Amino acid sequence: MAAVTTKPLATQHDLSLAYSPGVAGPCLDIQKNPAAAYEMTNKSNTVAVISNGTAVLGLGNIGAMASKPVMEGKAALFKAFAGVDAVDICIDEKDPKKLADIISTLGPSFGGINLEDIKAPDCFIVEEICRERMDIPVFHDDQHGTATVIYAGLINALELTGRTLESLKLVVNGAGAAAIATLDLLTSQGLPKDNITLFDSQGCVTTSRKGLEARRAVYAKEGKGPKSLAKALEGADMFLGVSKAAALNPLWIAHMNKAPIIFALANPEPEVWPAHALEVASDAIVATGRSDFANQVNNVLCFPFLFRGALDARAHSITPAMQRAAALAIAELARSKPGKETTDAYPNDDFVFGQNYILPKPFDARLGEVVPAAVAQGAKEDGVAG
Amino acid sequence: MAAVTTKPLATQHDLSLAYSPGVAGPCLDIQKNPAAAYEMTNKSNTVAVISNGTAVLGLGNIGAMASKPVMEGKAALFKAFAGVDAVDICIDEKDPKKLADIISTLGPSFGGINLEDIKAPDCFIVEEICRERMDIPVFHDDQHGTATVIYAGLINALELTGRTLESLKLVVNGAGAAAIATLDLLTSQGLPKDNITLFDSQGCVTTSRKGLEARRAVYAKEGKGPKSLAKALEGADMFLGVSKAAALNPLWIAHMNKAPIIFALANPEPEVWPAHALEVASDAIVATGRSDFANQVNNVLCFPFLFRGALDARAHSITPAMQRAAALAIAELARSKPGKETTDAYPNDDFVFGQNYILPKPFDARLGEVVPAAVAQGAKEDGVAG
Repeated sequence: MAAVTTKPLATQHDLSLAYSPGVAGPCLDIQKNPAAAYEMTNKSNTVAVISNGTAVLGLGNIGAMASKPVMEGKAALFKAFAGVDAVDICIDEKDPKKLADIISTLGPSFGGINLEDIKAPDCFIVEEICRERMDIPVFHDDQHGTATVIYAGLINALELTGRTLESLKLVVNGAGAAAIATLDLLTSQGLPKDNITLFDSQGCVTTSRKGLEARRAVYAKEGKGPKSLAKALEGADMFLGVSKAAALNPLWIAHMNKAPIIFALANPEPEVWPAHALEVASDAIVATGRSDFANQVNNVLCFPFLFRGALDARAHSITPAMQRAAALAIAELARSKPGKETTDAYPNDDFVFGQNYILPKPFDARLGEVVPAAVAQGAKEDGVAG
Repeated sequence: MAAVTTKPLATQHDLSLAYSPGVAGPCLDIQKNPAAAYEMTNKSNTVAVISNGTAVLGLGNIGAMASKPVMEGKAALFKAFAGVDAVDICIDEKDPKKLADIISTLGPSFGGINLEDIKAPDCFIVEEICRERMDIPVFHDDQHGTATVIYAGLINALELTGRTLESLKLVVNGAGAAAIATLDLLTSQGLPKDNITLFDSQGCVTTSRKGLEARRAVYAKEGKGPKSLAKALEGADMFLGVSKAAALNPLWIAHMNKAPIIFALANPEPEVWPAHALEVASDAIVATGRSDFANQVNNVLCFPFLFRGALDARAHSITPAMQRAAALAIAELARSKPGKETTDAYPNDDFVFGQNYILPKPFDARLGEVVPAAVAQGAKEDGVAG
């Protein structure tokens, strides 16, 4: 990413406007009325992409500086997809409370904060403190962006398999930040907690587990819980994997309910290869994190447009209602064919709503038309618009 | 300021390079070898413009958010004058030690830190701590940028009046950050401390003054010092005003030495109007901070090019030797006529080295050609290049 001047700066007059003394006027206006910063500066179009590099992609705790390529890439996507000016700030602080203290002071220049690649459970702490202290949206994309796109895909998978969220039997493998945020969103939209069975590397998450933090404990099973993931999947409607390669043996799918929904999101190798899953259950709806298979759960479907909408509404926060609005708008796009520009970009896709097309493609030009508007409307309805 | 993508982002392939999985390679390279961040990211061309808004222009402590127009303007100048990508970060923290703690963690994304409009003496504390902890240049422009341009102008004023820095009798009015930094630079270049008489709003700064902080105490006079600024100016060679409007009565100039050097830098109204000073001493060399008079001391002559040179050299810090190199290069430009592009931009100037032309103009195209190279060379000679 590079910076670009938006006003001419070629003469002594331009210079006196951009710099002393001409710049004093806007300063005084903002001092009197802080909201004027949205009119008089680029605050209204700028998002900080912030990481401390403790959980970068699948690479782990590689440090703040080594996370910079990811953050620059993310900033580039903000601009390319939704015209949002994004600035990467890689912060050399691993302690989550200290990190939150730092981020909480960085608000004035930005219209929103996109947290990225901060390890769990630290990310929960950072986000909670920052949300409480800051008057601009603070959004941890690894959590809520992922949750929103999963929800969008699930809305369509439910429709296609004749299910409702209220009756969905869900088994989740992986209890990291994305899993927990997804469960938070789905339960806020109607999924009963009792329908959820959560597994991590130690087995089923139960209330007897020691040292369970609050955010995970919400989804712990009373009693012993199923002995194995295979056992848990018997009679389940959906498998959500946010864990690791090959965590789901295709054999186990045979014991799931008819037309199982399988979101195998480990990257780059999913919990199960789609072809293997479909060999066991040809009516399965399988989504992965990869662009070379059908139904890619890709955060880029959400975060540029969600922030675009939040900035347009000058929202003070991003609420579950705004995520829901985004998910519904994204889901809706898969139910009709995109324009020629988009279909030309994906010559091998047929764009027919169904088993192989439950989510729009990243370069679907309609995303920028409908998602931000839906999100901004959600912000207004939720009372968080500026 | 806005952000702009520097790589194409139009296809699924572009997306996989900017984002997962393609971005993992550079991350791992930087983890192994942090210096690779200069090759693989925009760290090498990015400066953070940081303020907490405690001393904005002449407006005072207006707060971080209200300082944003100044910081955005500054960022725009970095780009327009020297191609440096600058990002404004307005930090909501007034305590100087806490502010330093915050800034110290923000290094990974940037090749340099430009501190701005932080009140004295806090700015000394912030800068000292950050310089100690960070491996990139930390430069408080209000101090060192001002000092460098003053030194550049003074080099030519000395030449024109047949003086040397070693023998200059200097009276300074105003003991803020810019004054102290200028004295630090000038004494590092040969000005004897005994030749300096420093005044502030309480009169002459003497060693008997209570609560004098370390940075100011260096320039305190032993004993009582002169009773008044008027008295101090008797037999002085130079008046440097970094104080307030009308602080210098033109009458007092009559008692200064022949061909007095008067830098009256209060903005927007200088300590003395140039015409009034010249009426008393027609051989005076008068500089101000204003573009509508001759000899404007404007930081934009320095900071974009100083940072350009520091970034080009991947310097770990900005040293007095680099400031000296910048000052000499800037001063040299006033000794010859600029090209047609520059003279056309200033149709009322004759560009003849002398009383009315001791400093080049901001839009002198030669600045970008000679100052960065001189600074980068200075960094190498000083052993701080990367």
